[in-house]
Amino acid sequence: MYQIDLNCDLGESYGAYRLGMDEDIIPLISSANVACGFHAGDFNTMAKTARLCEESGVSIGAHPGFPDLQGFGRRNMSLSPAEVQNLITYQIGALDAFCRSAGIRLRHVKPHGALYNMAAKDPALAEAICRGIYSFDPSLILLGLSGSEMLRQAKRIGLPCAAEVFADRAYEDDGTLVPRGRPGAMITDEDAAVRRVVRMILEHRVTSINGRDIEICPDSVCVHGDSGKALLFVKKIRSALEEAGIAIRPL
Amino acid sequence: MYQIDLNCDLGESYGAYRLGMDEDIIPLISSANVACGFHAGDFNTMAKTARLCEESGVSIGAHPGFPDLQGFGRRNMSLSPAEVQNLITYQIGALDAFCRSAGIRLRHVKPHGALYNMAAKDPALAEAICRGIYSFDPSLILLGLSGSEMLRQAKRIGLPCAAEVFADRAYEDDGTLVPRGRPGAMITDEDAAVRRVVRMILEHRVTSINGRDIEICPDSVCVHGDSGKALLFVKKIRSALEEAGIAIRPL
Amino acid sequence: MYQIDLNCDLGESYGAYRLGMDEDIIPLISSANVACGFHAGDFNTMAKTARLCEESGVSIGAHPGFPDLQGFGRRNMSLSPAEVQNLITYQIGALDAFCRSAGIRLRHVKPHGALYNMAAKDPALAEAICRGIYSFDPSLILLGLSGSEMLRQAKRIGLPCAAEVFADRAYEDDGTLVPRGRPGAMITDEDAAVRRVVRMILEHRVTSINGRDIEICPDSVCVHGDSGKALLFVKKIRSALEEAGIAIRPL
Amino acid sequence: MYQIDLNCDLGESYGAYRLGMDEDIIPLISSANVACGFHAGDFNTMAKTARLCEESGVSIGAHPGFPDLQGFGRRNMSLSPAEVQNLITYQIGALDAFCRSAGIRLRHVKPHGALYNMAAKDPALAEAICRGIYSFDPSLILLGLSGSEMLRQAKRIGLPCAAEVFADRAYEDDGTLVPRGRPGAMITDEDAAVRRVVRMILEHRVTSINGRDIEICPDSVCVHGDSGKALLFVKKIRSALEEAGIAIRPL
Repeated sequence: MYQIDLNCDLGESYGAYRLGMDEDIIPLISSANVACGFHAGDFNTMAKTARLCEESGVSIGAHPGFPDLQGFGRRNMSLSPAEVQNLITYQIGALDAFCRSAGIRLRHVKPHGALYNMAAKDPALAEAICRGIYSFDPSLILLGLSGSEMLRQAKRIGLPCAAEVFADRAYEDDGTLVPRGRPGAMITDEDAAVRRVVRMILEHRVTSINGRDIEICPDSVCVHGDSGKALLFVKKIRSALEEAGIAIRPL
Repeated sequence: MYQIDLNCDLGESYGAYRLGMDEDIIPLISSANVACGFHAGDFNTMAKTARLCEESGVSIGAHPGFPDLQGFGRRNMSLSPAEVQNLITYQIGALDAFCRSAGIRLRHVKPHGALYNMAAKDPALAEAICRGIYSFDPSLILLGLSGSEMLRQAKRIGLPCAAEVFADRAYEDDGTLVPRGRPGAMITDEDAAVRRVVRMILEHRVTSINGRDIEICPDSVCVHGDSGKALLFVKKIRSALEEAGIAIRPL
Repeated sequence: MYQIDLNCDLGESYGAYRLGMDEDIIPLISSANVACGFHAGDFNTMAKTARLCEESGVSIGAHPGFPDLQGFGRRNMSLSPAEVQNLITYQIGALDAFCRSAGIRLRHVKPHGALYNMAAKDPALAEAICRGIYSFDPSLILLGLSGSEMLRQAKRIGLPCAAEVFADRAYEDDGTLVPRGRPGAMITDEDAAVRRVVRMILEHRVTSINGRDIEICPDSVCVHGDSGKALLFVKKIRSALEEAGIAIRPL
Repeated sequence: MYQIDLNCDLGESYGAYRLGMDEDIIPLISSANVACGFHAGDFNTMAKTARLCEESGVSIGAHPGFPDLQGFGRRNMSLSPAEVQNLITYQIGALDAFCRSAGIRLRHVKPHGALYNMAAKDPALAEAICRGIYSFDPSLILLGLSGSEMLRQAKRIGLPCAAEVFADRAYEDDGTLVPRGRPGAMITDEDAAVRRVVRMILEHRVTSINGRDIEICPDSVCVHGDSGKALLFVKKIRSALEEAGIAIRPL
């Protein structure tokens, strides 16, 4: 039987600053990527988010990012691989503590923002991330961009990994994402986006921005939960997956 | 046979800022309290300090503090007990990750600075700290001020705890520390300080600032490692303990 | 002719985190208190807010707070008076730079949150704040709680000052605010709140929580701009002031 | 008569963390570049440093950097030009406030670390820095790397600027610095370094790493003040300059 994971970036509120509709999105997904206090989130948000995941039975993962709250972890920073490994260790440990306190187990790690994008292409950064995870707990799953250097390095060092795809993003012929700025980078037609996801899961194929049919093997689909519109889109995807006989399961 | 733990606050360097003589002090102590990135330390320092503890076979503990790097965690902050519990969970989790990566086990937790002082007297803060530790790992040892509210709350909820004393500080009749500002608060005569420590361990007694003989039951002595002079004093204490037949053992 | 200033705390967005409806509230007020990057706001928000004030011709002031973004400056922190003076100097200088770049002049300073509340009662903190302002520019106006120690210290050292009142807060017999937690602390009846403000301005009197008529001499009324409801309330106050023949003018 | 400015990066202590020998170096230089709290320094250090400059009659400048205390501003960060302009405005305003409070005038601005290096080559960043300075005070002097894009943009928009050279660094044929990692990048022979500086000032020429004689027109020489050895080197340079009849004067 076909199955897929639905993941979402969560727990991004910081102090008095609220972000995301975590209570609404968590029951709709199977895996939550929880910010760890560097680019977003704080110790109070993490405690609350771990409890929400426990209550909904949703699988929880760490979502570590650069130490750049003002930039929301979206600005490239030149950290050495050794620093990146330590940054990963720190953040997954911090979230793991809230999981233990909530009586649940940390299951996966998905780097955030600029760190995610840089490590998708940079073997040294990708390896540093994988080693940070592996030396903490070699049974954790790295969740990374389909076709990325991160997945390659995870396989190389023996770390479990999973490939994520995006419903609303166009792909190049080589399976990488079309950069956001480029025309056609975003799939704005929701029905088309849903059909693309279903096809990726059932047929392991997607049409690239150049019109070619390329191979893609998704383990997880990344969805957004930051607006009412985003929630509606998640419900639409869920319905389409159910109709197609695809079960929604955590990694 | 008599025994005592020697503990020291360590791992306080941050980025380009160096603090402490960690490489020199670690071989001289039995327990290291490692800063966790809030009031001091960072992910690189924590990784290095965990490795140093592993190499020297020194027992490692978390040294969580207020989120106040500029104030070095020494400024009182009014966080709610719920916030303090989460702050503790976060920081011990972060350090635990570096312990796991270094192949050692986190053994104890000693709050830092203003948090330590406030929780020594405030039952709600003290309980919050203990609950943060207990819900993460009920076998961790809370290291707190001898006679403090922290130890009382730890005993109440069933968390292992240990009492620390200071060689260089004077005590009130009720066993609390004489505040630093007061005349006579610091024991500046090193030989007298060493004799006081030995007597605390052998006889469970110390002379208060008012000249009374009071009871004190130390599990650990806090020493400093931030200067050559501090290191010499630790060596002096070690010699005196050995001469008195007191073994230096971690908690 | 009667006149009053309407002030509002603004420019509190930080990085990706949005807070407040600045574009909507600025045209409705006469003075903007702009966060300076310590408890809220950042350099991008400050640049934008200064431009908004310039465009609307609204008087601009600095709104310095404790270095505590996570606590939004609402948590008490024990900084020495010397530190507080420096913290004030830093933050008003930073905002002043954006005023100069936008071609407008910084006019007033209103401390934020816990710093505001602590300095309302603590003469040493209040004096430190006033000295921080005075040594930067002795023509700046300190905006502080009516009847507070801050205003007293400003008068003592010769710093111009102005008294602010709150439409939605109850007052003690001595003119201080009833703490938020206490029953009756908030004036929830909007019409009653508006009538209270008008009477404060015209008659310099308000009914305390104990039913006594006390004296109060407001120079400015603090309003909120963080929700549609808050905006409606500001419009209601503006109408009532106009009907009562009270002009809205900056300090 | 020949003259030159000696500048040094100062005011880099943060909270309990001490860095640099400011009291010793300030009397030996003519211009101080003072950290502004983003990559180093804090409001207390800035207040103290401004007073030290006032007492020694040393010209004071802002030394703004990336918001990266842990990385000491040495890690590249991808901020947009608009963000960089605001970051500059904020930091020079903050330092200017301490200058005003100390009764002295801010004279120049020298970007720090990664921001300095990136802006040396990136016209958009360089222009953003210059615009941040110009819109605050068009009479401030930008101090930048000799031959850099920063100086080019300053001249283009009409901002006064000055070229700095390094005694201990090798130069490429095009007048840019040889990157630190490369063999021969550092001039370790102190006497040779001093001779190079004197020749740069008197003859406007220096020998590149490839042995070519290239043109260089220094307005200022950057010296270090972070160790006793660095101080000795500054004294050596001062003596050599005096012997050569070169006066040490601020920009």
